[in-house]
Amino acid sequence: MKIIDISLPLNSKTPIYPDNVPLTVSVHHAMPQYQTALSSITMGSHTGTHVDAPLHAVYGGLPLDKIPLTHFVGPCRVLDFSKESNEFISKAQLEAKNIREGERILLKTYNSIRGFDSFYPNYVYLDGDAADYLAKVGVSAVGIDSLSIKQRGGADHRAHVSLLKANIPIIEGLALHEAEEKEYELVCLPLHFSNIDGAPARAILIER
Amino acid sequence: MKIIDISLPLNSKTPIYPDNVPLTVSVHHAMPQYQTALSSITMGSHTGTHVDAPLHAVYGGLPLDKIPLTHFVGPCRVLDFSKESNEFISKAQLEAKNIREGERILLKTYNSIRGFDSFYPNYVYLDGDAADYLAKVGVSAVGIDSLSIKQRGGADHRAHVSLLKANIPIIEGLALHEAEEKEYELVCLPLHFSNIDGAPARAILIER
Repeated sequence: MKIIDISLPLNSKTPIYPDNVPLTVSVHHAMPQYQTALSSITMGSHTGTHVDAPLHAVYGGLPLDKIPLTHFVGPCRVLDFSKESNEFISKAQLEAKNIREGERILLKTYNSIRGFDSFYPNYVYLDGDAADYLAKVGVSAVGIDSLSIKQRGGADHRAHVSLLKANIPIIEGLALHEAEEKEYELVCLPLHFSNIDGAPARAILIER
Repeated sequence: MKIIDISLPLNSKTPIYPDNVPLTVSVHHAMPQYQTALSSITMGSHTGTHVDAPLHAVYGGLPLDKIPLTHFVGPCRVLDFSKESNEFISKAQLEAKNIREGERILLKTYNSIRGFDSFYPNYVYLDGDAADYLAKVGVSAVGIDSLSIKQRGGADHRAHVSLLKANIPIIEGLALHEAEEKEYELVCLPLHFSNIDGAPARAILIER
């Protein structure tokens, strides 16, 4: 069994989407003054690798804990667009991949090649028509290697809204540089917050 | 495939170990004033279901990101002591279970039966001799259904120190009421913090 960690490290260098909550980790109890070391964490619900629940972009939508974990655990397919386009993923590009209902789809783009040294506003995103297509096919989950699946500052909100209206959760902030275009087992586990719009997650790919 | 979620829900009712960081979730951006809803989270590194890294109780010990994820992913065995003792788990009780090197061991106690409606100072813990035994056997990970594996206020710190000195990570705050004494696949994924003493995690058991 091989595990590929596709989660962004969380530290002072983690890129944060503009206007989101800063990530801080500070000492709460330090050794040897205390018997144990404890840290205090502040972060946004959409920090680093994280899951968007419908409530994130659909007013009155489902919170994260109402999305069954089966969406996040099981076979998945990585689609590699990292050499095809540096702007967005289109419906035509997805149509060429024969995506089926119920699949967990992870979108690898140039974002993973460039890396995550800082927040790049011109990240590769999912086009609105492409999101409509994935919602219509009825995939189980969509992951992408950018901190948001929609274009930074764009007026087309379908990348969020079309998927989340269909109760298809979105995994954002994936680090897919080690993943190839093929099938893996996905385990993406967001923290178990109640009634929240999204949550930080740890995500891995398993090869057996 | 059946998934059993063995993670505590995180909300205003989540029990917090005394003197740890309070858990708060507040609105950062609300809809419909904003296009998306975002929350701000503050929590301790040992809140809810979480992992203790060696650095938690061993001065200069390894931080969480230096413990390979293989400790947390793979076959595990739930040992059910929930009907045997309401005080602690002893070495003799463990010896009866034929524990082998490399096993991932989850300890189910009366804590899971009582539930997690509040913090109960008299939680069932792991005895120091029992911890020494698990460290000597060389298990891969030890999980327990209390917020700390050691006795509240006790002078014997071996439940933490003996395991963590051997670089055996500890999973605390598990909710094992649905788990039986048998083998499962464990996936426990702590958030990917760098250089930290421990981190909140989501943990599941998989039955195939």
